Amino acid sequence: MAEEGFRTIWLNPDDPSIVQIIDQRKLPHEYCIHDLTTWQDGLVAIDDMFVRGAPLIGATAAWSLYLAALHGDPAGDAVRNAAAKLLASRPTAVNLGWAVERILRIVDDTSNADIAQAIRADAQAICDEDVQICRSIGQHGLTLLEAISKRKSGGTINVLTHCNAGALATINWGTATAPIYLAHQQGLDVHVWVDETRPRNQGSQLTAWELARNGVPHTLIVDNAGGHLMQHGQVDIIITGTDRTTRSGDVANKIGTYLKALAAFDNDVPFYVALPSTTIDWATRDGVRDIPIEERDSTEVSHLSGIANDALTTVRTVMRTTPISNYAFDVTPARLVSGLITERGICDASEAGLASLFPEEVDT
Amino acid sequence: MAEEGFRTIWLNPDDPSIVQIIDQRKLPHEYCIHDLTTWQDGLVAIDDMFVRGAPLIGATAAWSLYLAALHGDPAGDAVRNAAAKLLASRPTAVNLGWAVERILRIVDDTSNADIAQAIRADAQAICDEDVQICRSIGQHGLTLLEAISKRKSGGTINVLTHCNAGALATINWGTATAPIYLAHQQGLDVHVWVDETRPRNQGSQLTAWELARNGVPHTLIVDNAGGHLMQHGQVDIIITGTDRTTRSGDVANKIGTYLKALAAFDNDVPFYVALPSTTIDWATRDGVRDIPIEERDSTEVSHLSGIANDALTTVRTVMRTTPISNYAFDVTPARLVSGLITERGICDASEAGLASLFPEEVDT
Repeated sequence: MAEEGFRTIWLNPDDPSIVQIIDQRKLPHEYCIHDLTTWQDGLVAIDDMFVRGAPLIGATAAWSLYLAALHGDPAGDAVRNAAAKLLASRPTAVNLGWAVERILRIVDDTSNADIAQAIRADAQAICDEDVQICRSIGQHGLTLLEAISKRKSGGTINVLTHCNAGALATINWGTATAPIYLAHQQGLDVHVWVDETRPRNQGSQLTAWELARNGVPHTLIVDNAGGHLMQHGQVDIIITGTDRTTRSGDVANKIGTYLKALAAFDNDVPFYVALPSTTIDWATRDGVRDIPIEERDSTEVSHLSGIANDALTTVRTVMRTTPISNYAFDVTPARLVSGLITERGICDASEAGLASLFPEEVDT
Repeated sequence: MAEEGFRTIWLNPDDPSIVQIIDQRKLPHEYCIHDLTTWQDGLVAIDDMFVRGAPLIGATAAWSLYLAALHGDPAGDAVRNAAAKLLASRPTAVNLGWAVERILRIVDDTSNADIAQAIRADAQAICDEDVQICRSIGQHGLTLLEAISKRKSGGTINVLTHCNAGALATINWGTATAPIYLAHQQGLDVHVWVDETRPRNQGSQLTAWELARNGVPHTLIVDNAGGHLMQHGQVDIIITGTDRTTRSGDVANKIGTYLKALAAFDNDVPFYVALPSTTIDWATRDGVRDIPIEERDSTEVSHLSGIANDALTTVRTVMRTTPISNYAFDVTPARLVSGLITERGICDASEAGLASLFPEEVDT
């Protein structure tokens, strides 16, 4: 966010055996800090979505492995056991596997007595690197917004985003929001259409919250509305995040992203995806066929929380007996993606595009 | 619905000065019958969406004008005054204007003393005709479902629908649901994907309710999910209703319909729209440009009702300060519509297609 010191996960400065997170399930109504004292706390935080967003899930897994090492004996076995459980928790987000494997390499190279402190240093490094990566994504993405502002002679830049690929999905700055925050800081007239993002309402509850906190003008819309706005020239660019992008540029992201990409294509609205390279799945080409799509509990659809009589209350909005299906992600084919905004620059959503920025990965 | 006697609006059999409706705002949690005793009650029922759905809005307007005549003196002036107010209430639904104009023609031809009874007879006729029209739509649409069943060797016919174009949107049977009810009655294996339909959740709260009541297998999904299901072959056909269809076949319907039509087109899924010919706006060609799109109150997006502690409770799900935009409809261009299912048969979504079924309208 514009706030330099903002973090979504950190070690308690007074007690380095406690990792602290924001319980994002209670936003925007309550800002609650939640303590993780065991690796199982971290697993619950990921499973039950106290934290979400591909980069933050990866960082939370890394910190969870630190807690596993801290309390495990021998530390190495404890970390390997925790790693297996964490890997199974959210199948779509590729950063989870990336972070866990990075930590496991440290475990293999370190004696049991030193493992906890070695993981602590690397978990901190993962977080610090993420902040730098998001900032770089912001600087590259900013060029797109500057070009729109210039074309519109300084008029409002209308960005549409889906879900929360904001500071709350990362450590700070966000991926899709980083260019927006930078544009706003530079005085560009940027306005964000915030998709509600059913079923968990990350747009209305998280993105709206962090944009308001940073003073960025925005308007909440239901997920159904974006097509109409694009038909009527009200959207200049779409920027979303991603939970996994294949080496050919197919983009897995929050369910409904594909529908927005179709509408963007139909109305000549540029559709960009912002991502740290840790989100790229170099082993997969065909995203629609091969990316596993997580199915989540039906209560995410049937129940909703909000304020009634000044208290946070959960209501069941449908009949108890209504059958429900709840896929969490969909895959947008690369042909609908105008470009990928990475920490190394912007490229085509294609193997050739990614190879131009990450030759060391594509050659392997 | 499968139930022959089901009606969404009727004259109280014990007191013909009272029109009765179902308060659809309370479904599926409560089934409440609501009395209309003045034309203003009818206006409130339309404005505040006790009733919704293009055909039912038209019928409610007709019955409201009966109440205006019953209590007005002179009756003709009272009806004309009420008609002007009713016409302004829901700008997108074309049946409202159709029903009001039909009643006004009766008023012009009838002496004041006889107006109320003449309107009563015609309001009843509008309702009876609607039931017959929906049944005919069902019979024509059934041929599409039968063909899918045959192609799949009797396997499940997966229909996706958006919003509620069901019995609750009409007098009985519905438009989009009529083919589904007939297929189910004939023993075909039909299953319906029910879009939640934010912001008012007519899918999860009304369509799911009436499909369950009629024993039709169905699964609720969020509006974001349909594209993913179509990518994976889980949808055989989409059938929706419409609030207004232009003479060139552009379809105004609940916000988000356009996004589903785009996904259908991208995945070769047939996209059909079911409508009584009263929903056709013969005066308009370019729907995207010329159909007025109603904007509704932001509380439809920010607040939601459901059951908490056995009581119907409304919660505010977003921050009090979040700015919200709430367009109620969008327009799907005819190029994305596979066909229109009308009471006279199925035709292309084009002026030529409509002319083949309604030559008397297109020639004028």
